Amino acid sequence: MSKVRVNCFSISLDGYGAGPKQSLENPLGERGPELHNWFFPTRTVQKKVFSQEGGETGVDNDMAERSFENVGAWILGRNMFGPVRGDWPDESWKGWWGDVPPYGCDVFVLTHYPRKSFALAGTTFHFITDGPLAAMEKAKASAKDKDVRIGGGASTIRQYLQAGLIDEMHLAVSPVILGKGEPLLQGIDLSALGFNSVKLFAGEAASHFWLSR
Amino acid sequence: MSKVRVNCFSISLDGYGAGPKQSLENPLGERGPELHNWFFPTRTVQKKVFSQEGGETGVDNDMAERSFENVGAWILGRNMFGPVRGDWPDESWKGWWGDVPPYGCDVFVLTHYPRKSFALAGTTFHFITDGPLAAMEKAKASAKDKDVRIGGGASTIRQYLQAGLIDEMHLAVSPVILGKGEPLLQGIDLSALGFNSVKLFAGEAASHFWLSR
Repeated sequence: MSKVRVNCFSISLDGYGAGPKQSLENPLGERGPELHNWFFPTRTVQKKVFSQEGGETGVDNDMAERSFENVGAWILGRNMFGPVRGDWPDESWKGWWGDVPPYGCDVFVLTHYPRKSFALAGTTFHFITDGPLAAMEKAKASAKDKDVRIGGGASTIRQYLQAGLIDEMHLAVSPVILGKGEPLLQGIDLSALGFNSVKLFAGEAASHFWLSR
Repeated sequence: MSKVRVNCFSISLDGYGAGPKQSLENPLGERGPELHNWFFPTRTVQKKVFSQEGGETGVDNDMAERSFENVGAWILGRNMFGPVRGDWPDESWKGWWGDVPPYGCDVFVLTHYPRKSFALAGTTFHFITDGPLAAMEKAKASAKDKDVRIGGGASTIRQYLQAGLIDEMHLAVSPVILGKGEPLLQGIDLSALGFNSVKLFAGEAASHFWLSR
């Protein structure tokens, strides 16, 4: 059955999904990139995101690998698509990923500013201005019997959690403390939302927790 | 050099050190005991806390074992000593641990209600009514060149963290979500408090994070 999933979302030990002071130069916030130290070196990410050979294998890589399986559509918050804020000045920004985005399907980007869809090496980006529920409807229609993956960031995941729309969530707790930043779970009662199973997988450089309802 | 340590303090994935609705029947709060599912079955705890042979060995047990090493004195919040609230009705409550407490040294219990010290099988419990700083002073004097261990609970640890008095902290993140309860780190900026190193040890049933400054 088709699911709505979060995968490989990294948080610090103190619960932050991004560091403080997010900016154009620091899209993940101060020290935010450290959250992903387990993720970027994996063979899966080296290949899918950076088009490079090599990279780490092991549990962390298995987690990254699984995260791309059976995904039929993605939803991203705007900051995960790019650093541009406000109106799109032009159509030149095509995402963080260079010529070959790692998606290979429809990607729905939440934004308040309209922009035309465009296709790039098997991925089509759509810009959704009528809210997260509309984006979900479109993503589900596009994914058909595959899953919808919500890429992030933290505030996007929080919105879908609070709307009760996420079926499965894989969080990677990194051995990092940020002190402040963008909290993922604070004030969200996951038990009340029906999450009642948590499985732990020990990665080499992070701890992986799989939550389901 | 003598340190002030927290060890084996269990939190849920969503950051709670105890469940909601703590009570006499439920001293750890609703579902709070699940936080310690990695801890109680270990050989170390079976022996030290329950005076039983057997129990699990492995990384979780190593963590439990290390937690008791080189400890010269303990500080406990009152609820970790017992369920009694308000004035001590009598001296009959001697702790959760039966005839042989697992400490074997001085234990300083924070309380607002005076009670006479008493000794039990190598452990002496002292009841400190003049606050956490006074308790720390006494614990350090008693521990001499060994470490002071703060047993918990969450609010006791938070007080000592905020006072900048904790040098090292080992948190065990359990594959449990509580939804609500007593948060350990919320609103505490561990980076500003000087914690800059986090090491991860993968246990069988929990993830162990060692923080130091």
